[in-house]
Amino acid sequence: MDNRFMQMAIDLALKGMRKGEGGPFGAVIVKDGEIIGMGNNRVTGTNDPTAHAEVVAIRDACQFLSDFQLTNCTLYTTCEPCPMCLGAIYWARPDKVYYGCTRHDAAAIEFDDDFIYQEMNVPIHNRKIPMEPFMRTEALQLFGEWSTLSDKTLY
Amino acid sequence: MDNRFMQMAIDLALKGMRKGEGGPFGAVIVKDGEIIGMGNNRVTGTNDPTAHAEVVAIRDACQFLSDFQLTNCTLYTTCEPCPMCLGAIYWARPDKVYYGCTRHDAAAIEFDDDFIYQEMNVPIHNRKIPMEPFMRTEALQLFGEWSTLSDKTLY
Repeated sequence: MDNRFMQMAIDLALKGMRKGEGGPFGAVIVKDGEIIGMGNNRVTGTNDPTAHAEVVAIRDACQFLSDFQLTNCTLYTTCEPCPMCLGAIYWARPDKVYYGCTRHDAAAIEFDDDFIYQEMNVPIHNRKIPMEPFMRTEALQLFGEWSTLSDKTLY
Repeated sequence: MDNRFMQMAIDLALKGMRKGEGGPFGAVIVKDGEIIGMGNNRVTGTNDPTAHAEVVAIRDACQFLSDFQLTNCTLYTTCEPCPMCLGAIYWARPDKVYYGCTRHDAAAIEFDDDFIYQEMNVPIHNRKIPMEPFMRTEALQLFGEWSTLSDKTLY
Protein backbone atom coordinates (compact mmCIF):
# COMPACT_ATOMS: atom_id res chain seq x y z
CA MET A 1 0.00 0.00 0.00
CA ASP A 2 1.14 3.51 -0.70
CA ASN A 3 -0.18 6.74 0.82
CA ARG A 4 0.50 8.69 -2.36
CA PHE A 5 -1.95 6.61 -4.40
CA MET A 6 -4.81 6.94 -1.91
CA GLN A 7 -4.02 10.63 -1.58
CA MET A 8 -4.28 10.96 -5.36
CA ALA A 9 -7.69 9.24 -5.25
CA ILE A 10 -8.79 11.67 -2.52
CA ASP A 11 -7.54 14.66 -4.53
CA LEU A 12 -9.43 13.47 -7.63
CA ALA A 13 -12.59 13.12 -5.57
CA LEU A 14 -12.18 16.58 -4.08
CA LYS A 15 -11.55 18.26 -7.42
CA GLY A 16 -14.52 16.52 -9.09
CA MET A 17 -16.87 17.29 -6.22
CA ARG A 18 -15.88 20.96 -6.19
CA LYS A 19 -16.39 21.20 -9.97
CA GLY A 20 -19.89 19.73 -9.60
CA GLU A 21 -19.11 16.56 -11.57
CA GLY A 22 -20.59 14.22 -8.97
CA GLY A 23 -20.20 12.81 -5.48
CA PRO A 24 -17.13 12.75 -3.23
CA PHE A 25 -15.48 9.64 -4.64
CA GLY A 26 -12.17 8.97 -6.39
CA ALA A 27 -10.15 5.95 -7.51
CA VAL A 28 -6.70 5.17 -8.85
CA ILE A 29 -5.37 1.95 -10.41
CA VAL A 30 -1.70 1.07 -10.04
CA LYS A 31 0.47 -1.47 -11.85
CA ASP A 32 4.20 -1.97 -11.19
CA GLY A 33 4.23 1.17 -9.03
CA GLU A 34 2.74 3.41 -11.76
CA ILE A 35 -0.75 4.88 -12.03
CA ILE A 36 -2.39 3.42 -15.14
CA GLY A 37 -5.97 4.55 -14.58
CA MET A 38 -7.89 7.10 -12.54
CA GLY A 39 -11.41 8.36 -12.07
CA ASN A 40 -13.76 10.42 -10.00
CA ASN A 41 -17.53 10.25 -9.72
CA ARG A 42 -19.13 11.93 -12.75
CA VAL A 43 -22.75 10.78 -12.40
CA THR A 44 -24.47 14.15 -12.44
CA GLY A 45 -21.89 15.95 -14.61
CA THR A 46 -22.19 13.46 -17.48
CA ASN A 47 -25.73 12.09 -16.88
CA ASP A 48 -24.29 8.62 -16.42
CA PRO A 49 -25.44 6.70 -13.35
CA THR A 50 -22.68 4.14 -13.96
CA ALA A 51 -19.89 6.75 -13.84
CA HIS A 52 -18.76 5.93 -10.33
CA ALA A 53 -15.08 6.54 -9.59
CA GLU A 54 -14.13 2.86 -9.68
CA VAL A 55 -15.97 2.20 -12.96
CA VAL A 56 -14.38 5.27 -14.57
CA ALA A 57 -10.92 4.19 -13.35
CA ILE A 58 -11.39 0.57 -14.48
CA ARG A 59 -12.46 1.72 -17.95
CA ASP A 60 -9.51 4.10 -18.06
CA ALA A 61 -6.96 1.48 -16.99
CA CYS A 62 -8.36 -1.14 -19.39
CA GLN A 63 -8.10 1.30 -22.30
CA PHE A 64 -4.50 2.04 -21.28
CA LEU A 65 -3.63 -1.68 -21.13
CA SER A 66 -5.77 -2.63 -24.15
CA ASP A 67 -7.06 -5.47 -22.00
CA PHE A 68 -10.34 -6.28 -20.26
CA GLN A 69 -8.46 -7.71 -17.27
CA LEU A 70 -6.49 -5.87 -14.57
CA THR A 71 -4.12 -8.69 -13.66
CA ASN A 72 -1.35 -7.57 -11.25
CA CYS A 73 -3.10 -4.26 -10.62
CA THR A 74 -4.12 -2.62 -7.33
CA LEU A 75 -7.16 -0.38 -6.96
CA TYR A 76 -7.17 2.47 -4.44
CA THR A 77 -10.65 3.86 -3.84
CA THR A 78 -11.80 6.50 -1.36
CA CYS A 79 -14.81 4.41 -0.30
CA GLU A 80 -15.77 0.75 -0.02
CA PRO A 81 -17.18 -0.07 -3.46
CA CYS A 82 -20.96 -0.10 -3.95
CA PRO A 83 -22.44 -3.34 -5.38
CA MET A 84 -22.13 -2.04 -8.95
CA CYS A 85 -18.46 -1.19 -8.48
CA LEU A 86 -17.77 -4.39 -6.55
CA GLY A 87 -19.22 -6.32 -9.46
CA ALA A 88 -17.07 -4.31 -11.90
CA ILE A 89 -14.01 -5.13 -9.78
CA TYR A 90 -14.75 -8.86 -9.90
CA TRP A 91 -15.15 -8.72 -13.68
CA ALA A 92 -11.90 -6.71 -14.09
CA ARG A 93 -10.06 -8.91 -11.57
CA PRO A 94 -7.36 -6.66 -10.07
CA ASP A 95 -5.18 -8.38 -7.45
CA LYS A 96 -6.08 -6.13 -4.52
CA VAL A 97 -8.32 -3.28 -3.36
CA TYR A 98 -7.64 -0.61 -0.73
CA TYR A 99 -10.64 1.46 0.36
CA GLY A 100 -11.00 4.56 2.58
CA CYS A 101 -14.53 5.07 3.95
CA THR A 102 -16.98 2.21 4.51
CA ARG A 103 -20.44 1.58 3.06
CA HIS A 104 -21.86 2.76 6.38
CA ASP A 105 -19.97 6.04 6.10
CA ALA A 106 -21.54 6.41 2.62
CA ALA A 107 -25.01 5.67 4.01
CA ALA A 108 -24.45 8.36 6.68
CA ILE A 109 -24.20 11.00 3.92
CA GLU A 110 -27.24 9.49 2.20
CA PHE A 111 -25.76 7.39 -0.57
CA ASP A 112 -27.73 4.23 -1.35
CA ASP A 113 -24.87 1.72 -1.21
CA ASP A 114 -26.09 -0.02 1.92
CA PHE A 115 -29.69 -0.20 0.65
CA ILE A 116 -28.50 -1.78 -2.60
CA TYR A 117 -26.40 -4.33 -0.68
CA GLN A 118 -29.57 -5.28 1.20
CA GLU A 119 -31.61 -5.57 -2.01
CA MET A 120 -29.05 -8.05 -3.44
CA ASN A 121 -30.25 -10.59 -0.88
CA VAL A 122 -33.96 -9.99 -1.34
CA PRO A 123 -35.58 -12.72 -3.49
CA ILE A 124 -35.79 -11.35 -7.02
CA HIS A 125 -39.62 -11.27 -7.05
CA ASN A 126 -39.73 -9.19 -3.85
CA ARG A 127 -37.42 -6.33 -4.72
CA LYS A 128 -38.20 -2.63 -4.54
CA ILE A 129 -37.67 -2.46 -8.31
CA PRO A 130 -39.97 -5.23 -9.62
CA MET A 131 -38.12 -7.90 -11.61
CA GLU A 132 -39.98 -10.58 -13.55
CA PRO A 133 -38.88 -13.55 -15.67
CA PHE A 134 -39.98 -13.32 -19.31
CA MET A 135 -39.27 -15.37 -22.46
CA ARG A 136 -36.60 -17.55 -20.84
CA THR A 137 -37.00 -20.25 -23.49
CA GLU A 138 -36.19 -17.83 -26.31
CA ALA A 139 -33.33 -16.23 -24.36
CA LEU A 140 -31.78 -19.61 -23.56
CA GLN A 141 -31.23 -20.19 -27.28
CA LEU A 142 -28.55 -17.48 -27.09
CA PHE A 143 -26.68 -19.47 -24.48
CA GLY A 144 -27.00 -22.59 -26.59
CA GLU A 145 -25.40 -20.84 -29.57
CA TRP A 146 -22.66 -19.34 -27.34
CA SER A 147 -21.76 -22.83 -26.11
CA THR A 148 -21.24 -24.05 -29.65
CA LEU A 149 -19.07 -21.11 -30.81
CA SER A 150 -15.51 -22.30 -31.37
CA ASP A 151 -13.62 -18.99 -31.74
CA LYS A 152 -15.06 -16.97 -28.84
CA THR A 153 -13.02 -14.92 -26.36
CA LEU A 154 -13.83 -15.88 -22.77
CA TYR A 155 -13.91 -13.21 -20.06
CA MET B 1 -44.53 -6.53 -20.99
CA ASP B 2 -44.05 -6.78 -24.73
CA ASN B 3 -42.57 -9.65 -26.71
CA ARG B 4 -41.14 -7.29 -29.32
CA PHE B 5 -38.86 -5.57 -26.81
CA MET B 6 -37.42 -8.80 -25.40
CA GLN B 7 -37.05 -10.11 -28.94
CA MET B 8 -35.09 -6.96 -29.83
CA ALA B 9 -32.82 -7.55 -26.82
CA ILE B 10 -32.29 -11.15 -27.97
CA ASP B 11 -31.52 -10.00 -31.51
CA LEU B 12 -28.97 -7.46 -30.25
CA ALA B 13 -27.30 -10.17 -28.19
CA LEU B 14 -27.18 -12.55 -31.14
CA LYS B 15 -25.73 -9.96 -33.51
CA GLY B 16 -23.05 -8.83 -31.02
CA MET B 17 -22.07 -12.39 -30.14
CA ARG B 18 -21.75 -13.37 -33.81
CA LYS B 19 -19.61 -10.28 -34.51
CA GLY B 20 -17.28 -11.22 -31.62
CA GLU B 21 -18.11 -8.14 -29.54
CA GLY B 22 -18.71 -10.10 -26.35
CA GLY B 23 -20.99 -12.57 -24.60
CA PRO B 24 -24.59 -13.55 -25.46
CA PHE B 25 -26.37 -10.72 -23.70
CA GLY B 26 -28.63 -7.88 -24.86
CA ALA B 27 -30.82 -5.20 -23.28
CA VAL B 28 -33.41 -2.66 -24.33
CA ILE B 29 -34.88 0.26 -22.36
CA VAL B 30 -38.42 1.41 -23.09
CA LYS B 31 -40.27 4.59 -22.13
CA ASP B 32 -43.85 5.35 -23.19
CA GLY B 33 -43.81 2.38 -25.56
CA GLU B 34 -40.66 3.54 -27.39
CA ILE B 35 -37.15 2.16 -27.24
CA ILE B 36 -34.88 4.89 -25.83
CA GLY B 37 -31.74 2.85 -25.19
CA MET B 38 -30.18 -0.43 -26.21
CA GLY B 39 -27.02 -2.41 -25.73
CA ASN B 40 -25.26 -5.70 -26.12
CA ASN B 41 -22.25 -7.11 -24.31
CA ARG B 42 -19.05 -5.51 -25.66
CA VAL B 43 -16.53 -6.57 -23.02
CA THR B 44 -13.99 -8.26 -25.27
CA GLY B 45 -14.66 -6.14 -28.37
CA THR B 46 -13.96 -2.84 -26.59
CA ASN B 47 -11.67 -4.03 -23.74
CA ASP B 48 -14.19 -2.77 -21.23
CA PRO B 49 -15.16 -5.20 -18.45
CA THR B 50 -18.05 -2.89 -17.50
CA ALA B 51 -19.60 -3.01 -20.98
CA HIS B 52 -22.34 -5.48 -20.08
CA ALA B 53 -25.57 -5.14 -22.08
CA GLU B 54 -27.51 -3.49 -19.25
CA VAL B 55 -24.75 -0.96 -18.49
CA VAL B 56 -24.42 -0.10 -22.19
CA ALA B 57 -28.21 0.30 -22.50
CA ILE B 58 -28.49 2.40 -19.32
CA ARG B 59 -25.72 4.73 -20.50
CA ASP B 60 -27.39 4.95 -23.91
CA ALA B 61 -30.86 5.74 -22.50
CA CYS B 62 -29.47 8.30 -20.04
CA GLN B 63 -27.66 10.12 -22.85
CA PHE B 64 -30.89 10.11 -24.86
CA LEU B 65 -32.89 11.53 -21.93
CA SER B 66 -30.08 13.85 -20.73
CA ASP B 67 -30.82 12.52 -17.27
CA PHE B 68 -29.07 10.20 -14.82
CA GLN B 69 -32.39 8.66 -13.80
CA LEU B 70 -34.63 6.27 -15.77
CA THR B 71 -37.93 7.18 -14.14
CA ASN B 72 -40.96 5.57 -15.86
CA CYS B 73 -38.69 3.31 -17.90
CA THR B 74 -38.73 -0.48 -18.28
CA LEU B 75 -35.60 -2.56 -18.87
CA TYR B 76 -35.77 -5.76 -20.92
CA THR B 77 -32.64 -7.89 -20.53
CA THR B 78 -31.89 -11.35 -21.90
CA CYS B 79 -30.47 -12.53 -18.54
CA GLU B 80 -30.95 -11.83 -14.86
CA PRO B 81 -28.55 -8.95 -14.17
CA CYS B 82 -25.17 -9.73 -12.61
CA PRO B 83 -24.34 -7.82 -9.38
CA MET B 84 -22.65 -5.02 -11.34
CA CYS B 85 -25.67 -4.54 -13.58
CA LEU B 86 -28.10 -4.93 -10.69
CA GLY B 87 -26.25 -2.14 -8.91
CA ALA B 88 -26.36 0.00 -12.07
CA ILE B 89 -30.13 -0.62 -12.28
CA TYR B 90 -30.65 0.54 -8.68
CA TRP B 91 -28.62 3.70 -9.35
CA ALA B 92 -30.54 4.41 -12.59
CA ARG B 93 -33.89 3.52 -10.98
CA PRO B 94 -36.11 2.29 -13.84
CA ASP B 95 -39.62 1.27 -12.78
CA LYS B 96 -39.40 -2.37 -13.82
CA VAL B 97 -37.11 -5.10 -15.15
CA TYR B 98 -37.96 -8.13 -17.31
CA TYR B 99 -35.23 -10.77 -17.62
CA GLY B 100 -34.88 -13.91 -19.78
CA CYS B 101 -32.33 -16.41 -18.46
CA THR B 102 -31.43 -16.70 -14.77
CA ARG B 103 -28.08 -16.32 -13.00
CA HIS B 104 -27.94 -20.11 -12.80
CA ASP B 105 -28.37 -20.38 -16.56
CA ALA B 106 -25.41 -17.94 -16.86
CA ALA B 107 -23.32 -20.02 -14.45
CA ALA B 108 -24.09 -23.11 -16.54
CA ILE B 109 -22.27 -21.52 -19.51
CA GLU B 110 -19.44 -20.46 -17.19
CA PHE B 111 -20.16 -16.81 -16.50
CA ASP B 112 -19.17 -15.65 -13.02
CA ASP B 113 -22.46 -14.00 -12.01
CA ASP B 114 -23.34 -16.54 -9.35
CA PHE B 115 -19.80 -16.53 -7.89
CA ILE B 116 -19.90 -12.72 -7.61
CA TYR B 117 -23.32 -12.88 -5.90
CA GLN B 118 -21.77 -15.23 -3.35
CA GLU B 119 -18.75 -12.96 -2.83
CA MET B 120 -21.08 -10.03 -2.01
CA ASN B 121 -22.00 -11.79 1.23
CA VAL B 122 -18.48 -12.79 2.21
CA PRO B 123 -17.07 -10.47 4.91
CA ILE B 124 -14.93 -7.88 3.14
CA HIS B 125 -11.65 -9.10 4.70
CA ASN B 126 -12.26 -12.70 3.51
CA ARG B 127 -12.93 -12.16 -0.17
CA LYS B 128 -11.16 -13.86 -3.08
CA ILE B 129 -9.93 -10.42 -4.16
CA PRO B 130 -8.33 -9.03 -0.95
CA MET B 131 -9.88 -5.76 0.22
CA GLU B 132 -8.33 -3.71 3.02
CA PRO B 133 -9.29 -0.48 4.76
CA PHE B 134 -6.72 2.30 4.34
CA MET B 135 -6.63 6.02 5.24
CA ARG B 136 -10.28 6.20 6.33
CA THR B 137 -9.65 9.34 8.38
CA GLU B 138 -8.35 11.24 5.36
CA ALA B 139 -11.09 9.90 3.08
CA LEU B 140 -13.82 10.84 5.56
CA GLN B 141 -12.87 14.51 5.14
CA LEU B 142 -14.34 14.28 1.63
CA PHE B 143 -17.69 13.25 3.06
CA GLY B 144 -17.50 16.10 5.56
CA GLU B 145 -17.02 18.63 2.77
CA TRP B 146 -19.80 17.02 0.69
CA SER B 147 -22.22 17.41 3.60
CA THR B 148 -21.53 21.14 3.80
CA LEU B 149 -21.91 21.84 0.05
CA SER B 150 -25.04 23.87 -0.55
CA ASP B 151 -25.45 23.67 -4.35
CA LYS B 152 -24.82 19.96 -4.95
CA THR B 153 -26.96 17.73 -7.18
CA LEU B 154 -28.11 14.63 -5.29
CA TYR B 155 -28.35 11.28 -7.08
